Amino acid sequence: MEAIALSRPGARAASAFAGAARPRQAFPMTSPPAPETRPLLHFEDLAVGSRCETGAHLLTAEEIVAYAREWDPQPFHLDPAAARDSLFGEFVASGWHVASLMMRLLVTQGWRLAGGQIGLQVDELVFRATRPGDSLRVVGEVLELRASRSKPDRGLARVRLTVINQRDDPALSCVVTQIILRKGGA
Amino acid sequence: MEAIALSRPGARAASAFAGAARPRQAFPMTSPPAPETRPLLHFEDLAVGSRCETGAHLLTAEEIVAYAREWDPQPFHLDPAAARDSLFGEFVASGWHVASLMMRLLVTQGWRLAGGQIGLQVDELVFRATRPGDSLRVVGEVLELRASRSKPDRGLARVRLTVINQRDDPALSCVVTQIILRKGGA
Repeated sequence: MEAIALSRPGARAASAFAGAARPRQAFPMTSPPAPETRPLLHFEDLAVGSRCETGAHLLTAEEIVAYAREWDPQPFHLDPAAARDSLFGEFVASGWHVASLMMRLLVTQGWRLAGGQIGLQVDELVFRATRPGDSLRVVGEVLELRASRSKPDRGLARVRLTVINQRDDPALSCVVTQIILRKGGA
Repeated sequence: MEAIALSRPGARAASAFAGAARPRQAFPMTSPPAPETRPLLHFEDLAVGSRCETGAHLLTAEEIVAYAREWDPQPFHLDPAAARDSLFGEFVASGWHVASLMMRLLVTQGWRLAGGQIGLQVDELVFRATRPGDSLRVVGEVLELRASRSKPDRGLARVRLTVINQRDDPALSCVVTQIILRKGGA
């Protein structure tokens, strides 16, 4: 990976979606803003430490089973009784279900990035047991920013994404490298 | 991470699901084996280089839209016309859709691992443009194996998972760290 600029002197905080010092909300159950009401953030609008936080989604057993039937049909995601005899010892959501839910919360309630939410690579993707009744929100935080060397219309951001439950414990964490358009870009 | 044993002298190949030298199949369109017909592989059955390969799934535009509506509602995954004006320049599947499909293929047609397919961490998860009409299969290959220090009933495997299309190009690649039970384990 190329060297990464660890700060962007020209960056400015954009509305409630940016700014490292934004206080943490324990249960942000507000309904999501309609997409068009969110400010459109370009690469220049982000700084290292910029944060977004979504509202929470209450995960149900029915949702866990529905996702698992289609994508991850293993006993510990399908059947609470069978789950007790598994390595988990309990009924839990598929990690890919939690990742998919993270994406939906980000796209519908997270920051609105110029060019969209386009991830090139994901690292350090860690899953923790996620159970029916967990209330899950997503926090994003910009770790690093750098301009693209080959394409002047865009930059790259490394963003820590964390899915957090109602006890403020992480359900999933990862670092995603995203493309974000610059102002005046495509 | 602890030091990792790069070979397991006692490991033995198990049926068609293991063995580094297994030749690559270009279009393995065979129907999936019923789960109970697959050999159950314990930690001791795997060796560095052990491979599995699933049959292929033909991805349709309808599937791309259905996943995107629920989990990743962005124009380039929902609308071929809007996708042409996006950074992708074309209609493509959500990367999380391809990851979910990878999991289904692995669980239903990949190796049957003692304890199930349980991933602790995923790294180097890279997405490539995946289009309607792509025929996707999954290849798994064991990179590293090590016994758990704290829990004698299990080991850990680092496995390279690659989703490969009909042109033998990768659609998704990642390295997952998985738990696998030992013989005589829980």
